[in-house]
Amino acid sequence: MGLIDDELKTRAARVIPGTMYGHQSVGKLPGNFPQFFKTAKGAYLWDEDGKKYLDFMCGYGPNLFGYANEEIDAAYIAQLKRIDTATGPSSVMVELAEQFVEQVGHADWAMFCKNGTDATSMALMVSRACTGKKKVLFAKGAYHGSAPWCTPMPAGTVPDDRSHFIYYTYNDIESLESAVTEAADDLAGIFASPFKHDVIVDQELPDPTYAHRVREICDEKDALLIIDEVRAGFRIARDCSWSPLGLQPDLSCWGKSIANGHPISALLGSNKAKEAAGKIYATGSFWFSAAPMAAALTTLKLIADSDYLEQTISVGEQLRTGLTDLAQRHNMPLRQTGPSQMPLITISDSQGKADMDLGYAFSSEMMARGVYFHPWHNMFMNAAMTDTDIDFALEAADAALSAVKEIATSKE
Amino acid sequence: MGLIDDELKTRAARVIPGTMYGHQSVGKLPGNFPQFFKTAKGAYLWDEDGKKYLDFMCGYGPNLFGYANEEIDAAYIAQLKRIDTATGPSSVMVELAEQFVEQVGHADWAMFCKNGTDATSMALMVSRACTGKKKVLFAKGAYHGSAPWCTPMPAGTVPDDRSHFIYYTYNDIESLESAVTEAADDLAGIFASPFKHDVIVDQELPDPTYAHRVREICDEKDALLIIDEVRAGFRIARDCSWSPLGLQPDLSCWGKSIANGHPISALLGSNKAKEAAGKIYATGSFWFSAAPMAAALTTLKLIADSDYLEQTISVGEQLRTGLTDLAQRHNMPLRQTGPSQMPLITISDSQGKADMDLGYAFSSEMMARGVYFHPWHNMFMNAAMTDTDIDFALEAADAALSAVKEIATSKE
Repeated sequence: MGLIDDELKTRAARVIPGTMYGHQSVGKLPGNFPQFFKTAKGAYLWDEDGKKYLDFMCGYGPNLFGYANEEIDAAYIAQLKRIDTATGPSSVMVELAEQFVEQVGHADWAMFCKNGTDATSMALMVSRACTGKKKVLFAKGAYHGSAPWCTPMPAGTVPDDRSHFIYYTYNDIESLESAVTEAADDLAGIFASPFKHDVIVDQELPDPTYAHRVREICDEKDALLIIDEVRAGFRIARDCSWSPLGLQPDLSCWGKSIANGHPISALLGSNKAKEAAGKIYATGSFWFSAAPMAAALTTLKLIADSDYLEQTISVGEQLRTGLTDLAQRHNMPLRQTGPSQMPLITISDSQGKADMDLGYAFSSEMMARGVYFHPWHNMFMNAAMTDTDIDFALEAADAALSAVKEIATSKE
Repeated sequence: MGLIDDELKTRAARVIPGTMYGHQSVGKLPGNFPQFFKTAKGAYLWDEDGKKYLDFMCGYGPNLFGYANEEIDAAYIAQLKRIDTATGPSSVMVELAEQFVEQVGHADWAMFCKNGTDATSMALMVSRACTGKKKVLFAKGAYHGSAPWCTPMPAGTVPDDRSHFIYYTYNDIESLESAVTEAADDLAGIFASPFKHDVIVDQELPDPTYAHRVREICDEKDALLIIDEVRAGFRIARDCSWSPLGLQPDLSCWGKSIANGHPISALLGSNKAKEAAGKIYATGSFWFSAAPMAAALTTLKLIADSDYLEQTISVGEQLRTGLTDLAQRHNMPLRQTGPSQMPLITISDSQGKADMDLGYAFSSEMMARGVYFHPWHNMFMNAAMTDTDIDFALEAADAALSAVKEIATSKE
């Protein structure tokens, strides 16, 4: 990468374990992915060497209305000057809870926190406190955070961290029923992602029959249905992501985009779970800070009043259609799965699985042309993206696919 | 409380479980404690009804240099305008890690997160990943966060969340040795608070013999010593809180005050634990955000270069001495424990324990006079407090003790 990025990585290696940790480490990405960035505005990022990128990762989700959105940031700064982290919350906390209840169908109440993991951890606790039962179901391979009970890597955890968890296969009713049978009369809750958005493998929209069965089972077994909206929230609908299917959860977990990048997450719930939610003890030093709440209020207003959803779907469709055309023209097996506003884009091998070598080559060629495409994680559209931006990405993709085609041919 | 506070509480009861949750709920505090605040500046808070308070809770710790500190907030806002939450961190993350390594004796590396609980959860994971062992020791009654594995209330948790935990009594070498014996050859780490700062009971400074024994045991058993500095960090020393005892931990957890209220926490570690820290997977949507890091950099600079520590100790001593005099004059058994810059103030009953009725009456009388005193949680001094502020608090305490004396007498 650039000289400054290289130098920063050398310095980071001395004082940060693994040079960088967590989901923003580029250690497992192509070598020309910059690790550090200097500026962000709208749909664009500039790395520390000054190179500009059209960014389809959106901060791994938080960027919904464009980086450094002026209206949202102004709300943050104005609130910061009044009161932010203090000995108690501000009235903005009540307004924000009311606004979530207003805008999200199932929500009768809200609790605010910082990480998506905070919201999923509280949902786990509330499901058990509400039902007095212990077993909780998760889809295999789904990501629900990085605390010891949910982190995808085993290092530093013990098997007991996940005792009473049972795993099912997303969209597979038989495996779901089998997990429910295993839980017997001890089923506290079922966690579900709005759609299957696991890394590397194809994304899957929820099969409506399957989704309805999840809801039915929770009702039959007096268990809570928990939808983890942290990644997809407000990108599928202005309500919970299963509301277009006519389904509402009992608990929903939110984060990332709800204040367009300002640090706040939320657990929303229906009245059925309110008393239990009042019994668990979960808190954090900055959970009551007012400035991110003011930013979230403005973001919710934009979600309700703007055409951001139609815009992100529109640019997503433009990208998808354009890439489909280019893939045909280059005779490359490009796979695009998930909703167009949250696409996972890979290149298939002869077995129809993701060819990691070619996927890396493709994203590396895109990066070289100023477009931040991820080789194995879903990407995101944001409302600051325009048709012109997508045209720019498609031009890059045309050249990138040519280069990848050569690599693919030489592999054969 | 005030009319607006009452109205906000009525609205909050509809949309927030228990009206408010976590450590900032006033549900278990005297009736005249306001729940909501409108403005914060320096050492003062204004509630939503406009009443002003000299605040000895400092946001439960984050306020170290005064609310809305101009230099720190300017650093935050300037960074926010460049880049904050994005697809990768900014160079400020490397600078901040380097600065922690420079300023904190044992630190060879840093990882940043949001909640104190994130840092303690990562410390737990690193201790196990580093040693390949499972048992971890905690002091009975010590607070290390609110995730299922550490929350002080059982609702929503299962016993398995704490399997492999063993408890000892702070400052009691015999109980510590007994816990170590129980861990046998499976001891991964020992968690310790910088001093005993549990709620309600007297605070205790660490007995140096005891503290040295903790360090020795960790060395003998190849276990990690983890100091949870989240609450006390930089209020005892400009380094880890045990550095005045000549002791350094292997891991230290930081949060609350390290960016003067901006949302960031940190796990610091020595090289012994660096490889293990690089193996655990812990991350969060906002952990790489640059603005709180810029605020932390400025806060660290103020910690290194200003006399904040001497100032907070000085106003703490002024308060302690003044209260001791007043207590004698009113013949009231006021107990003041812990370091003067983080005092716990209670009123003793005839058995020498905290008389909760009188403690509540005292803090309620203080609140009525515009001073936020907590009846059962340690309080905090901050560097914006002046001698005049303390004089104001002592005047309030004089009148409050008169009122409490009457209650005490009528109880007899």
